[in-house]
Amino acid sequence: MAAPIDLAAALATFHEPWQPRTVAVLNEYDVRVVKTLGEFAWHSHPDTDELFLVVRGSLTIRMEAGDVTLGPGQLYVVPRGVRHQPVSSEGAEIVLIEPSVTVNTGDSPGELTAARRVL
Amino acid sequence: MAAPIDLAAALATFHEPWQPRTVAVLNEYDVRVVKTLGEFAWHSHPDTDELFLVVRGSLTIRMEAGDVTLGPGQLYVVPRGVRHQPVSSEGAEIVLIEPSVTVNTGDSPGELTAARRVL
Repeated sequence: MAAPIDLAAALATFHEPWQPRTVAVLNEYDVRVVKTLGEFAWHSHPDTDELFLVVRGSLTIRMEAGDVTLGPGQLYVVPRGVRHQPVSSEGAEIVLIEPSVTVNTGDSPGELTAARRVL
Repeated sequence: MAAPIDLAAALATFHEPWQPRTVAVLNEYDVRVVKTLGEFAWHSHPDTDELFLVVRGSLTIRMEAGDVTLGPGQLYVVPRGVRHQPVSSEGAEIVLIEPSVTVNTGDSPGELTAARRVL
């Protein structure tokens, strides 16, 4: 029997911010849930667009051409190669969709870099 | 200035069920919003998985191996080649993510087949 993936339930299984969990795979893409809090690193993904969808809270994506702020039920696709910094002063729960090979910190590896982790 | 895509606002711009609107593009994939009501056609997509995410209401995906019913904030990926029939007796608002070339009725074209339409 098939079971749905419940985003809120998946997000309730962990607490650490900026540590994505892959909850589903669509062809060669991952659906990842992430908790965000504070400032992430500025980075870009030279080879792929990246989709952000907010489930709860508020997330601002800082970009050089202008910021975008997302609330629940709102999404934004950061185009490949566009430098961005996700920021969430009060915390948010989000979904990321991107190729399974994508690393969270893109071209700027550092202490926030997370290994791919399947929930 | 970048603007978020608001799923509820996008869904409020039309009424017809089973007529997807593409609201964002992620590489070669479409993010589509769809209103569902009643029974869709049984079909499969031989070349791709298909992601269903419910925003509002309830959607059942009938499959030969068992059904899955999704409520708000729940998703399911129908694997490529798996025959399925989306059904929504009381109506739902959903997001589909699949390659931009994907046709809604897959291998079973008919009167429900919809052309790709960007909102």
